[in-house]
Amino acid sequence: MADRLETTAEPVTVPVDLGERSYDIVIGRDVLTGAGARIATLMPGARLAVITDETVARTHLPALSASLKAAGLEHTVITVPPGEQTKCYAQFERLCDEVLAARLERGDAVLAFGGGVVGDLAGFVSASVRRGMTFIQMPTTLLSQVDSSVGGKTGINSRYGKNLIGAFHQPALVLADTAILDTLSDREFRAGYAEVVKYGLLGDADFFEWLDLNWKGIFDGTSAREEAVARSCAAKAAIVGADERESGQRALLNLGHTFGHALESAVEYDGTRLVHGEGVSIGMMLAHEFSARLGLLPQADVERVEAHLIKVGLPVRMHQIPGQLPPAETLLDSIAQDKKVSRGALTFILTRGIGHAFVEKGVDPAAVLEFLKEKLQR
Amino acid sequence: MADRLETTAEPVTVPVDLGERSYDIVIGRDVLTGAGARIATLMPGARLAVITDETVARTHLPALSASLKAAGLEHTVITVPPGEQTKCYAQFERLCDEVLAARLERGDAVLAFGGGVVGDLAGFVSASVRRGMTFIQMPTTLLSQVDSSVGGKTGINSRYGKNLIGAFHQPALVLADTAILDTLSDREFRAGYAEVVKYGLLGDADFFEWLDLNWKGIFDGTSAREEAVARSCAAKAAIVGADERESGQRALLNLGHTFGHALESAVEYDGTRLVHGEGVSIGMMLAHEFSARLGLLPQADVERVEAHLIKVGLPVRMHQIPGQLPPAETLLDSIAQDKKVSRGALTFILTRGIGHAFVEKGVDPAAVLEFLKEKLQR
Repeated sequence: MADRLETTAEPVTVPVDLGERSYDIVIGRDVLTGAGARIATLMPGARLAVITDETVARTHLPALSASLKAAGLEHTVITVPPGEQTKCYAQFERLCDEVLAARLERGDAVLAFGGGVVGDLAGFVSASVRRGMTFIQMPTTLLSQVDSSVGGKTGINSRYGKNLIGAFHQPALVLADTAILDTLSDREFRAGYAEVVKYGLLGDADFFEWLDLNWKGIFDGTSAREEAVARSCAAKAAIVGADERESGQRALLNLGHTFGHALESAVEYDGTRLVHGEGVSIGMMLAHEFSARLGLLPQADVERVEAHLIKVGLPVRMHQIPGQLPPAETLLDSIAQDKKVSRGALTFILTRGIGHAFVEKGVDPAAVLEFLKEKLQR
Repeated sequence: MADRLETTAEPVTVPVDLGERSYDIVIGRDVLTGAGARIATLMPGARLAVITDETVARTHLPALSASLKAAGLEHTVITVPPGEQTKCYAQFERLCDEVLAARLERGDAVLAFGGGVVGDLAGFVSASVRRGMTFIQMPTTLLSQVDSSVGGKTGINSRYGKNLIGAFHQPALVLADTAILDTLSDREFRAGYAEVVKYGLLGDADFFEWLDLNWKGIFDGTSAREEAVARSCAAKAAIVGADERESGQRALLNLGHTFGHALESAVEYDGTRLVHGEGVSIGMMLAHEFSARLGLLPQADVERVEAHLIKVGLPVRMHQIPGQLPPAETLLDSIAQDKKVSRGALTFILTRGIGHAFVEKGVDPAAVLEFLKEKLQR
């Protein structure tokens, strides 16, 4: 436990450059303790609506409340049930009304304290109440620290699909406490790690190398963890900064996600069978294998990716998902319905090597179908 | 009816300059007929969800549908009940899901065909589905042509107040058919006209003079109507262009609205007693009288404003509202709850002369209370 001596280390700050919507991501162990002071510096006298889920509230809310109180920040806490089904119209309505009932004004803030579900929902609420309140994020999972803290995407689910209703709304500050991640289950931590690997695979071969050497420290909570979160956020910030409204290169962030979403949909988002990061892990493998199949990628790279994912304990094959999967036709249909489809053509993120992913808008559905059929047979 | 010969006149275009979100407002008789062609030029091959209300649909939808079909634009029609109660969470959910059910993609468009209610609701839907679809407005009331077509404000009502949930979402095109206004009731036309007068009063004394000479033509449907709509839109566009997110000068557009909203709230938004524009008319009078009371405005200007509003048939005094009004304390409380209040201080739009309104952030609540008490006694 010698690593824990590093708790006194200064947090790492990643600036996200979006012009007048620029903000900082502060990453470190015990960022939670100083949260109140940081927020009070940013918006003196503001009032807060803290939106959190029951699980996070039980373990971490007392520390956050104490920190906000110590900084003289008045706040209301609104708790939602944990789980994806919370990202619904009914909770959106309930939260908007509760923020209004607390009489928060436009200069006040909504603080999301939880994982991706809380961040997405609270973000959409903060984007919509009074047509936009200040938004502060305190992501409490590895996935949300490396993914939701950059990009400004907020939203809820519709019966027609996930995240189909929402807004682009940038936070004013993100505080990522890496010590909170110690309380995650192994499975949840690993699933979040899949998104970390993604940043190496899509655009930074050196980062992938570094992860292959340092992944154990990230899991154990050495300072490699803060570095991994910071490098992931910086990578995403660079992409988002160049393409805030997702018209082009931002699609690279979907590496592994087109296949991954189809698999999540195939298990009807049953988290006991497959969580998002596991879908992304299998999806990244499929994207690399499909790229190799098209002659774009050397087989050696496929094998390096596979070896790394297996080493950290992530699934790499569809048959590792427990239970029955639907036929390839159903998976392809699900891919075609995905919102990343433009006017009927299939868009995939393919790769020419580790760190060299690219957006391919003209993928032949028949080739994907055949590939999926083969992969499902193994 | 010689004026109707002018139907062949070219429409007037008002450009709204908002950088990459710039768009045109096209104003003229029979713009409806050419709507399909204009939209097809802007977004060839796009599919549309037309959101309209039952009243507008009955009279004008066949012409719009024919125009869209003639231009080869596929479209789905979604109809909502007329009236303010349609701007609710339930309709928001229903419309978002219906737009998704129609399988519209991000490059497709939502077209609002109706008055302010339809525009506000459809605008929020188009801002939220897939985190932002293209939005086209075809306002069918004078109020919505001069008010909602510029500014990008969209939203629904909460039980805590009107328009408290929404987004800033700019349209890609606004088509204002001034012939459709012939089908409005006198009362609805007059109420919309109150907002036209507002643009003169807040910043353009010449426009007020012109209105005083030409108001009859505007009501009768001569080319003065297009000119009035165009000058109002241009005035609002200039203010919004300088302050898109409503941080400063945009508040000038609230001239008459702080008092007006309090009165609308006092009658519980009962449109048989008071419609929005009538509240604005009385509110503008109160703002001018209060400014005179503070020694800011010559009494002669108060009288000129009053004479004009009376001439066109708009109410100018609170006692013209049928039924009982609440005491001044209740009106003041309602003003203090208004979202335009910043950290407890009362903000009002006051004026130093016709065309010279300004934002005053430090108005003494006690002075307002006394003023309202007096005015209620008369």
